[in-house]
Amino acid sequence: MSRRYEDLSGPAIAERIKPESILLLPIGAVEQHGPHLPLSVDHVIADEMATAVTNACGEELDVWQLPTLSVSKSNEHAWSPGTLVLSADTLMRVLLDLARSVASTGVDRLVLLNGHGGNTTHFGTALREIRLETGMKTFLMHPSLPPAYGGTSTETELGMGIHGGMNETSVFMHLRPDLVDLSKAERKVPEAIADNKHVKFGGSTSFGWLSNDFDPDGYIGDPTGATAELGKELFSGAVSNLCDAMEEVKTFDFGR
Amino acid sequence: MSRRYEDLSGPAIAERIKPESILLLPIGAVEQHGPHLPLSVDHVIADEMATAVTNACGEELDVWQLPTLSVSKSNEHAWSPGTLVLSADTLMRVLLDLARSVASTGVDRLVLLNGHGGNTTHFGTALREIRLETGMKTFLMHPSLPPAYGGTSTETELGMGIHGGMNETSVFMHLRPDLVDLSKAERKVPEAIADNKHVKFGGSTSFGWLSNDFDPDGYIGDPTGATAELGKELFSGAVSNLCDAMEEVKTFDFGR
Amino acid sequence: MSRRYEDLSGPAIAERIKPESILLLPIGAVEQHGPHLPLSVDHVIADEMATAVTNACGEELDVWQLPTLSVSKSNEHAWSPGTLVLSADTLMRVLLDLARSVASTGVDRLVLLNGHGGNTTHFGTALREIRLETGMKTFLMHPSLPPAYGGTSTETELGMGIHGGMNETSVFMHLRPDLVDLSKAERKVPEAIADNKHVKFGGSTSFGWLSNDFDPDGYIGDPTGATAELGKELFSGAVSNLCDAMEEVKTFDFGR
Amino acid sequence: MSRRYEDLSGPAIAERIKPESILLLPIGAVEQHGPHLPLSVDHVIADEMATAVTNACGEELDVWQLPTLSVSKSNEHAWSPGTLVLSADTLMRVLLDLARSVASTGVDRLVLLNGHGGNTTHFGTALREIRLETGMKTFLMHPSLPPAYGGTSTETELGMGIHGGMNETSVFMHLRPDLVDLSKAERKVPEAIADNKHVKFGGSTSFGWLSNDFDPDGYIGDPTGATAELGKELFSGAVSNLCDAMEEVKTFDFGR
Amino acid sequence: MSRRYEDLSGPAIAERIKPESILLLPIGAVEQHGPHLPLSVDHVIADEMATAVTNACGEELDVWQLPTLSVSKSNEHAWSPGTLVLSADTLMRVLLDLARSVASTGVDRLVLLNGHGGNTTHFGTALREIRLETGMKTFLMHPSLPPAYGGTSTETELGMGIHGGMNETSVFMHLRPDLVDLSKAERKVPEAIADNKHVKFGGSTSFGWLSNDFDPDGYIGDPTGATAELGKELFSGAVSNLCDAMEEVKTFDFGR
Amino acid sequence: MSRRYEDLSGPAIAERIKPESILLLPIGAVEQHGPHLPLSVDHVIADEMATAVTNACGEELDVWQLPTLSVSKSNEHAWSPGTLVLSADTLMRVLLDLARSVASTGVDRLVLLNGHGGNTTHFGTALREIRLETGMKTFLMHPSLPPAYGGTSTETELGMGIHGGMNETSVFMHLRPDLVDLSKAERKVPEAIADNKHVKFGGSTSFGWLSNDFDPDGYIGDPTGATAELGKELFSGAVSNLCDAMEEVKTFDFGR
Repeated sequence: MSRRYEDLSGPAIAERIKPESILLLPIGAVEQHGPHLPLSVDHVIADEMATAVTNACGEELDVWQLPTLSVSKSNEHAWSPGTLVLSADTLMRVLLDLARSVASTGVDRLVLLNGHGGNTTHFGTALREIRLETGMKTFLMHPSLPPAYGGTSTETELGMGIHGGMNETSVFMHLRPDLVDLSKAERKVPEAIADNKHVKFGGSTSFGWLSNDFDPDGYIGDPTGATAELGKELFSGAVSNLCDAMEEVKTFDFGR
Repeated sequence: MSRRYEDLSGPAIAERIKPESILLLPIGAVEQHGPHLPLSVDHVIADEMATAVTNACGEELDVWQLPTLSVSKSNEHAWSPGTLVLSADTLMRVLLDLARSVASTGVDRLVLLNGHGGNTTHFGTALREIRLETGMKTFLMHPSLPPAYGGTSTETELGMGIHGGMNETSVFMHLRPDLVDLSKAERKVPEAIADNKHVKFGGSTSFGWLSNDFDPDGYIGDPTGATAELGKELFSGAVSNLCDAMEEVKTFDFGR
Repeated sequence: MSRRYEDLSGPAIAERIKPESILLLPIGAVEQHGPHLPLSVDHVIADEMATAVTNACGEELDVWQLPTLSVSKSNEHAWSPGTLVLSADTLMRVLLDLARSVASTGVDRLVLLNGHGGNTTHFGTALREIRLETGMKTFLMHPSLPPAYGGTSTETELGMGIHGGMNETSVFMHLRPDLVDLSKAERKVPEAIADNKHVKFGGSTSFGWLSNDFDPDGYIGDPTGATAELGKELFSGAVSNLCDAMEEVKTFDFGR
Repeated sequence: MSRRYEDLSGPAIAERIKPESILLLPIGAVEQHGPHLPLSVDHVIADEMATAVTNACGEELDVWQLPTLSVSKSNEHAWSPGTLVLSADTLMRVLLDLARSVASTGVDRLVLLNGHGGNTTHFGTALREIRLETGMKTFLMHPSLPPAYGGTSTETELGMGIHGGMNETSVFMHLRPDLVDLSKAERKVPEAIADNKHVKFGGSTSFGWLSNDFDPDGYIGDPTGATAELGKELFSGAVSNLCDAMEEVKTFDFGR
Repeated sequence: MSRRYEDLSGPAIAERIKPESILLLPIGAVEQHGPHLPLSVDHVIADEMATAVTNACGEELDVWQLPTLSVSKSNEHAWSPGTLVLSADTLMRVLLDLARSVASTGVDRLVLLNGHGGNTTHFGTALREIRLETGMKTFLMHPSLPPAYGGTSTETELGMGIHGGMNETSVFMHLRPDLVDLSKAERKVPEAIADNKHVKFGGSTSFGWLSNDFDPDGYIGDPTGATAELGKELFSGAVSNLCDAMEEVKTFDFGR
Repeated sequence: MSRRYEDLSGPAIAERIKPESILLLPIGAVEQHGPHLPLSVDHVIADEMATAVTNACGEELDVWQLPTLSVSKSNEHAWSPGTLVLSADTLMRVLLDLARSVASTGVDRLVLLNGHGGNTTHFGTALREIRLETGMKTFLMHPSLPPAYGGTSTETELGMGIHGGMNETSVFMHLRPDLVDLSKAERKVPEAIADNKHVKFGGSTSFGWLSNDFDPDGYIGDPTGATAELGKELFSGAVSNLCDAMEEVKTFDFGR
């Protein structure tokens, strides 16, 4: 049976969405990912991952999947014509409007599943804003945590496969093989950064960047060895991982 | 070949999206539609209609389909827990952000395909705002024009099948038969309004309303006789109609 | 006795403005209307019409006339130096501030009498915003409904006498004959638009426009045959029409 | 010949409004003034004073009168139902929108003629905001300067006839005798404040106040001895004074 | 014992800050003051004055000193690279956020001690905004009242020592002698303004100005004769004066 | 010689602040830290650390210290009366106003030194906003990185000494021994969170929290064993660490 929130009628919402339900809001992005990948990468991954997670553990944990927000804060790619960008301010308003809307059901837990690393800090801020305004418990998950925020990237990419790199390209090849053209991919790793101890992705000193700060092609990583097989493995690993996390979400009560 | 905007890569956007292309932005809503229909009605219709129109005449007219904006200004249904609402202000910001984003490609024509009548006036305003700010020519179409803005509704509904009524329910039955439960539908037509000469839907005096102003069940019309067959007919009529309109959009130049 | 809201003292407001009263807010514009008409056209017409309507049926229906908002959203004429423009955002704030102010009296019905077609969609949106925020019933009337929103225009203008055309010029000649210079008027009808089935004023596909999109002189219609006599007739017809509508407003209750 | 800005056509604006012209924007208020005066006091005085000044010296100094902004920041009277209030933020947006609009004519001098003391500081701020954004020279005048900002009030009122007191009531009696009911007026002077050296109207320490902080009737001063004769004298004195000031405005260039 | 608000713990706030306490918020500015003075002048003076006043009469009057807001609305000096500017809008938000924060303690009196004349009107407006929103009584004091708002300046400066002039330079020499370089100072008095009767600093007609409107060096006054001795005298006079005012603040109740 | 930005005059700014200079903006907070610490903890630490770092390596690396922003986004402590809170929106505006101001000097590098963990994500977002709007390179450092964002905390606190815990209390004891009262401190560690694999501080799933979600006393950690000696060691370690990072900042160019 469908666990898509929008498949419910108004009266059914009142019956089915309970305080102990979990609402899952996937957020994608439509932004340049280099010449080898389409704009839709983050949109597709967030959408597919949310569906896979809901299928895997939604029934057990009473998870309901909200419609995917396809576009978000992609201003680091605004230099590339066609990238769709919501400003930080607009996106925060969208999130708060949606949060207020779902809080009217009485639900107590909202999980953001964020497919775009460029949203990570902003959503980190939003977690508190939403909690303060609506009283809901709020959580932020990623299909794979961005390296800049504690996640991992391949060693050959020196931990800097952060946009259109090996892992992301592989996952997308698994999901939409026909939309990937590896022949256009090269190694684009800003190697000199690896020598830094502090100012680097995930280092103690973070820095503001636009995707063309590193290279005019606007991707960061080395997708040349990406494969659908690796992508499949990463994807199913992430589903399992996110379901584990969702179990903790289910009972989380600030250690009380 | 795909005519979905997001299936293009950054460099492909630069090649494929030309000044004479037409960008099509479908906008839905996730809002209560009475007990017989799910929240997703406007979302699904906008999405499916945009795809059908793009399939029918996209190649010929060089139309590119943008990702559907699933949620919009549904504040007339905010009384019903679970309806997702972007405020008027938030929605205008979203539209302007998206318009600025696509204008960076150099395209000259943007069409909003609006699946939710509650957005109609606001998008009417947005057409000028976007034109003034970006220089693009802007257009607004509807899968079916709301009766309150010059469209038609069935005679048995006295022209007031404006939300969850005969036509809309039929179209949705054609698209998602499993999500409709006609057994829960009744006739909900605010008949006394029909006696008015001025203050009525589509009359010379418009009025502000919330969907529970008329009836606590929140739908307006008589869906009891809806059928998938009627829906199919209305849907394919609309596709053909919108392609006709799109041809006029292609060459529209203010009568110059 | 005066039925001007502002002629009451604070304590008199409490006595005279009752829940069943109707508040009438006229809104004009100060914007270019071609070389034959002054900027004040919409301001004067809204103001005079509100006074005439209040005189004709204000006593009977307990209507109170608010001070005219002289300037509004004229951004389609912003290209013409001297046009006074409130942005869409500013104007919405003004309306909401005024609505909150009058709602404090306990009145239940607010009518906007809009003299400028460029406000029509925005005020359509405002009707719901005000209703939702204040609980008042809200209505929108026009001295004459713009052709783009279901009103009529002369046949010789092919229904496109929308700004500074025959009817508007005539009404203004009736009200301020000394401020009209017909010798400067020509026929400015974007005839090619008339061939369209969808993309035209009042068509199923609306479009964003600025007044100089059609012609650098910025008026649209054919004022050459305008006369004060026609204006007088149109004006008194409108007064009578609006009083009819006001009677419906008096008892309107969503068909309940 | 008319010196009302809005009586000009678009092309006439280009001819008549020159860099060396002066634009005069009257601003009123619609707010409670005690039981003896209507809400319109500041609106009427600003409007009449602007007209009188324009008649007296407009031709000589090339002054053009803009349409009066009838409503402004009256939030100190928001406790009194029916007072019309623009928020500080809304009013600043209105002023900036209007200033940008008139700056498009190339004019170099804009004078605000402020009929409502509650706007005085806010307009003081606006002078710089407008100058910075548009490059125009900006000025602020008052029909009579509020005592709280350096103006005078009668001795019997201990300098505290700041709202609905002797002078204001007299001027209004001169302009609209039929709308004044002196029989309802009493002496309402917050005498204890007069003992202060610092914290008082026009003192070195200013303070935030609402009009009902002093007395529930909401006026401050002693209108009991007001006469139309005094009002006439004050009015014509103000006209002459403002024309003197306008002459200085005409040539003001920061002492260069 | 410390009377600095921030030196209290959360629980101590609840004990020590009482309704009858007075909170003192110093506000400075970091902006160009000509070649003879550093950017910090207003910041330092506000900070030192607040401390001196709190030391002098804080214990007796139960005054608590809030952390100094170092930066404020210095947009009249925005032309000078490096001047730190909060926009009018940003600054109002900061003040309202702070006011709401301290109002949560239940305190009834908030005093702004404003070191920068460019904030004076804006803070005048803020007094009412804060009072209306929080219910606190609000007051505005200045280390020395700006000549444009009723304060005095030396006769040799024709009353126009308003920025970096004799008095301010002297006070700063008293506080930070090492940061003043009088060898770079000249007389910069816009003498022609002194001939005006209306349009001048503190005149009946105020005007918008930027600090380089008068002279490209951006200071206004004649600091050449400034001395630390004069500064000391002015400073201690101001402390005594402000404590006098603070006593009136302590019992101020709108003359009731 | 002073390396405080505000100690420079306007003309000196032009000489001394060069493209290759580094501007350092310390940001504190004034918020409850439990009963054993004053509100000023983050303010004092940010301020002292910025001074120590500037003293240690400012001359060599051409660092200039901006005035400390004392108050910031402390809304997780808004439940505790007296905590000073700038909203997320206000704080972003403040940062952008300041960034635009300093960018006018032509400087190329701005470092935020953030003393309050509650700002971390928001400043992460700001880094990009500022870079995009001003073109400056932007960096974010912490006196000690919050455990929730990759920093460390003591083992006895299970890595959860995040607010008023051992390390922070120790550092503050080193800086302001007289303002600490350890007799009021207890162990407040939400131990149950430590069992989580995902949903925990620094885990793959972050969560929104207010400081009283864990315990009504509002601090999180175990300050009972804090000592000034430990604080001194942590403080000097941090200075040395930040100077190392600052060296990398000096030459950082995105790995190019």
